[in-house]
Amino acid sequence: MDINQKKLGRQTVAFACPPSIVGHANVVGKKEGEGPLAGHFDHIAQDDSFGEKSWEKAESAMQRLALSAALNKAGRNTGGLDYLFGGDLLNQCIGSSFAVRGQDVPFLGLYGACSTMAEGLCLAAMVLDGGFGQWAAALTSSHFCSAERQYRAPLEYGGQRTPTAQWTVTGSGCAVLAREGNGPYITHATVGKIVDMGIKDANNMGCAMAPAACATIQAHFADTGRRPSDYDLILTGDLGQFGWEILKDLLRRDGVQADNLYDCGTLIYDLKRQDVHCGGSGCGCSAVVLTGYLLNGMRAGKWKHILFCGTGALLSPTSTQQGESIPGICHAVAISTKQGGL
Amino acid sequence: MDINQKKLGRQTVAFACPPSIVGHANVVGKKEGEGPLAGHFDHIAQDDSFGEKSWEKAESAMQRLALSAALNKAGRNTGGLDYLFGGDLLNQCIGSSFAVRGQDVPFLGLYGACSTMAEGLCLAAMVLDGGFGQWAAALTSSHFCSAERQYRAPLEYGGQRTPTAQWTVTGSGCAVLAREGNGPYITHATVGKIVDMGIKDANNMGCAMAPAACATIQAHFADTGRRPSDYDLILTGDLGQFGWEILKDLLRRDGVQADNLYDCGTLIYDLKRQDVHCGGSGCGCSAVVLTGYLLNGMRAGKWKHILFCGTGALLSPTSTQQGESIPGICHAVAISTKQGGL
Repeated sequence: MDINQKKLGRQTVAFACPPSIVGHANVVGKKEGEGPLAGHFDHIAQDDSFGEKSWEKAESAMQRLALSAALNKAGRNTGGLDYLFGGDLLNQCIGSSFAVRGQDVPFLGLYGACSTMAEGLCLAAMVLDGGFGQWAAALTSSHFCSAERQYRAPLEYGGQRTPTAQWTVTGSGCAVLAREGNGPYITHATVGKIVDMGIKDANNMGCAMAPAACATIQAHFADTGRRPSDYDLILTGDLGQFGWEILKDLLRRDGVQADNLYDCGTLIYDLKRQDVHCGGSGCGCSAVVLTGYLLNGMRAGKWKHILFCGTGALLSPTSTQQGESIPGICHAVAISTKQGGL
Repeated sequence: MDINQKKLGRQTVAFACPPSIVGHANVVGKKEGEGPLAGHFDHIAQDDSFGEKSWEKAESAMQRLALSAALNKAGRNTGGLDYLFGGDLLNQCIGSSFAVRGQDVPFLGLYGACSTMAEGLCLAAMVLDGGFGQWAAALTSSHFCSAERQYRAPLEYGGQRTPTAQWTVTGSGCAVLAREGNGPYITHATVGKIVDMGIKDANNMGCAMAPAACATIQAHFADTGRRPSDYDLILTGDLGQFGWEILKDLLRRDGVQADNLYDCGTLIYDLKRQDVHCGGSGCGCSAVVLTGYLLNGMRAGKWKHILFCGTGALLSPTSTQQGESIPGICHAVAISTKQGGL
């Protein structure tokens, strides 16, 4: 296929041989297992420590479980993977490095904050469609307890949360892709630009990320000539309730009507009963919603075409302390039960 | 080209249309500008703050300068790039996010510690050879002052360094790749696995990374059928003096004689006079040595074929505090003045 057929517009690629998602699995903590998507998780822990001595080690343990379960479903082992793309929210991405340590697999580390699963899928699909291997996986995680103490305050402090805050999901998701398979297929990837509209409130990340989501979603439609109604679902992850409403406003302002727009952060918890304020966040949130509810639904024939838009807030406690605003990013992948797309 | 021609063995790919490095530039601090490679840096700062109010902002400023200079040499602007791969050592990679914020370019964030430049080159070459764009860049940085206070102790503390310690390079390097150009060309990429031999001393990272470098270098030769003598130079970055000696020992033990093995960390400083103990480290070290001394030398006809092996220590202060050992990784790219390779 000629490059001009693969590259659509400025930010989107259409895969010549759309890679197939041949295995997907997830692991979550207790709270996530009490939410509305409980039936879609492969492993629900009753003990968020996963038997480890620290929250960081627990996060790595979740990743190992998710990777292993996804590979099992795909009928592979790590030695059968050509590439593993992984990343997480912890400083220096130790959740991933320590999960993958000692495993027989070429590893490429990513940092995309909560967009990591989408970024991993973009790159995994590219290396397979580009002819550089037969099998690749995308893996990520977040853990409420490791994230809270790193980004905010020690759990023991019992800090009160603002109404716009989101709750970091304890969970890990993994998707295994193959050059050949029976779908669902990744047909397109839209790689995002960093957008920063000057929001400085680290407890309102949905608001900070919504403009990046809006930019990438619009780029996807401009590049592909598709419309929102071409998809059964358009999913952001994770803007939360407030960010999701802002995104709807931004799209409406630009004349884009998307009634099929949902957010992984609002789906994973019962916002009325689970005391999570604006909903879920963290790399694990969109990863477990995708590898459970969404891909299971596609396999069951519930949806044919979805646009999965991972959103990341690229801040750090240091940047916030230095008075900086929050850069946002969003990467989108189109997933379809038909190899040819729509 | 068939996939079986692109994928060699377990870890290596051979590019069908080797992408060309069409622009490369770097920026360094005062100390690096006083070292033996001074003549190969595009911009040497006399003030390591780069006019910014924090070391973290200074690091982003360096990245912006390096990106802009590399694009100038390539005759492009950010709007002409299809992809930018970037990452750094700071928590949540804010050096890169804040450098790229507001720039018109699709961005994919990486975390590979000091292997980031090599990882970025692997992926940039893959997306171009895969037909997903015409132009891509790899960008990274490190800053002595931001790294010291994040990884070790505040500068004001004046902590004493152990003999095996390395000195984090203040510098940023950028390489712009194109599908078409006059070289040097990236002909092969070998993606590394995480290797951890149990070293726990965070002041001896060369020792922790040497086994990963050994594994990737050996994988490269096994996959390609090449020998060390096929390259004019084999460069690791950054093992430092002690790690480099260990790597030579490890290779010799396995019957690999590599007299042309050098390390970016030992090249960038005068180890006898600059009080850097085992040499340089940090994402910026191999990035500025590559984008200066090495690529300039290739353009000048000094070397025809080099194997550039970026090495990363995937630890964090938290993992060290929790008694963990240090996972290492190494990614290698073969760079040649001939498009056809050797």
